[in-house]
Amino acid sequence: MKVALDAMGGDYAPDITVAGAIDAVTEFDFEVILVGDRQRLQETLAGKKYPQNKLTIFHASETVGMDEAPAVALRKKKDSSMRRAVELVRDGNADAVVSAGNSGVMMATSLFVLGKLPNVDRPAIAAIMPAMNGFFVLVDAGANVDCKPENLHEFAYMGNAYYQAIFNIPSPRIALISIGEEDTKGNELTKEAFKLLKNANLNFTGNIEGKDIFTGGADVFVCDGFIGNVVLKVSEGLADTIIKMLKREIASAVTGKIGYLMLKPAIKKFKKRTDYDEYGGAPLLGINGTSIISHGRSSSRAIKNALRVAAEMSRKRVHERISEQLHAMSFKRDGVRKHAKS
Amino acid sequence: MKVALDAMGGDYAPDITVAGAIDAVTEFDFEVILVGDRQRLQETLAGKKYPQNKLTIFHASETVGMDEAPAVALRKKKDSSMRRAVELVRDGNADAVVSAGNSGVMMATSLFVLGKLPNVDRPAIAAIMPAMNGFFVLVDAGANVDCKPENLHEFAYMGNAYYQAIFNIPSPRIALISIGEEDTKGNELTKEAFKLLKNANLNFTGNIEGKDIFTGGADVFVCDGFIGNVVLKVSEGLADTIIKMLKREIASAVTGKIGYLMLKPAIKKFKKRTDYDEYGGAPLLGINGTSIISHGRSSSRAIKNALRVAAEMSRKRVHERISEQLHAMSFKRDGVRKHAKS
Repeated sequence: MKVALDAMGGDYAPDITVAGAIDAVTEFDFEVILVGDRQRLQETLAGKKYPQNKLTIFHASETVGMDEAPAVALRKKKDSSMRRAVELVRDGNADAVVSAGNSGVMMATSLFVLGKLPNVDRPAIAAIMPAMNGFFVLVDAGANVDCKPENLHEFAYMGNAYYQAIFNIPSPRIALISIGEEDTKGNELTKEAFKLLKNANLNFTGNIEGKDIFTGGADVFVCDGFIGNVVLKVSEGLADTIIKMLKREIASAVTGKIGYLMLKPAIKKFKKRTDYDEYGGAPLLGINGTSIISHGRSSSRAIKNALRVAAEMSRKRVHERISEQLHAMSFKRDGVRKHAKS
Repeated sequence: MKVALDAMGGDYAPDITVAGAIDAVTEFDFEVILVGDRQRLQETLAGKKYPQNKLTIFHASETVGMDEAPAVALRKKKDSSMRRAVELVRDGNADAVVSAGNSGVMMATSLFVLGKLPNVDRPAIAAIMPAMNGFFVLVDAGANVDCKPENLHEFAYMGNAYYQAIFNIPSPRIALISIGEEDTKGNELTKEAFKLLKNANLNFTGNIEGKDIFTGGADVFVCDGFIGNVVLKVSEGLADTIIKMLKREIASAVTGKIGYLMLKPAIKKFKKRTDYDEYGGAPLLGINGTSIISHGRSSSRAIKNALRVAAEMSRKRVHERISEQLHAMSFKRDGVRKHAKS
């Protein structure tokens, strides 16, 4: 099992990407291919200890900038570390790919180079987020800002297959993000999507309101990519703000300062439990291969975990499971359509 | 100045609504009309101390249930405490109205009885939410789940007038909730709304991402009612969850328990600072009068503050300001249109 890493992608590349790769090959049983400027990577690796047979370099002469437009990067950066890393998967030289570089370009490159799975209309990003007990998956977290009901239906199947594989749960609870629990609540998009999901071969538990997302109301939350991105970013921003506000209140109280010192282990534990780094990135589901998009600010721990999840997704053939489930679904749907016509 | 209160509306009515009204007339310089079952209200008031000339009862024989559909309630509950309270405003017997009852019915009743302002296409709910420093306004927080760009444009003007009046800020910063800061980021709706807002006579600061909502990036955040409701509910749910998770971590650490006791004043201060009860409810903007919709679970403090905000909005003629600003806007818009045609 080999995972290709865009070693030049991310705000702290290549130092942090290389550190994450070293940790991954040291801790886990797969290989990593560092893709990027060979000389630069050799310098970064120099003097470091790691199992040499599990970490190789694949040279690429260019790097994608964080502000580059996807269309331009696709056309002009044919030898970028990102593109070469994705091509390693296409050509069978790697089983999965991870990049913390420009996420728009990574999405476009993965789609363009690997292609969509049969029966998939719109690939989607599946973000893993921390809840009261454990984690949940949010799909689509930002790939598709304008959706049709059929797209949400498809996202549900993709999120289902992904959750099954990563958390070993045979029948994850799938919920639709809406503004009320009743079938009739929602906007035009979610009301139509609700009808499709009700008849889907999934453990669909209905609409769920924003307030119940973090209390473990479901395992997979389905929404369009605009909503998903807003939910993801609002959550990150609010969690940061609450911790900062609490710290500020504490700093202004004398007994609070002592209290804070005593609380530090609990706050550390809380942070660990809600740490996005635990899964290191979000896969683009619905493409013909395994591609994980990590945050530009990823730590080495996030990179290490993204590599781990990438290997696991590939090992469990998540994209094939998606293909099978969507095939069965489209078969059923077309059957129903034929029946309706006759 | 008189504010009508639907004394039978809300999960803890009439005990909590009456308590809130008593606190309001004791603390502030306006009168409150308790609308509801006279005998029940007299019993609730019995033995309590309050300035009798500032608190009166207006009898209504019916109550709207929390699960009633707006259309049904409008047709069948002609003598409900909610409807009568709104009618007091229509007939000039009260200056503003507050209800913690069924919010869908309150929205429909306010719209039906008071009517829309001239130049308003879609009235919207403006929720006040706590941020890092101070508060911000989110509009629309749930009245319109499917919107056109023109609606968002209108929401911005309404939010502007409301913020000006409540916070005494002459030129609030207006931002559009989107998935990136650049003009080109967003879905079809927000990209078109961006163009309208860029040319509006407002202090429009551009797109804002979810992560920057709580850090004071703007004063008024504009979005469609589906997004607004999701943002509102996700924020409430996440804040609750974070506090609960922190408490749980603390409870499992021995030194943490002592630390928690020392921290209690800081946590209390934090809760107060982020307390939704501080403003007690969200007005429906764009209707011909002042109507505030409070949470069903409102405390007496929330009711008291909702009554205070209602009186303030009426005193500052917020709905007239909205009408003026939208009139100027539509004049400009129609002028531009005429010009474009010639």
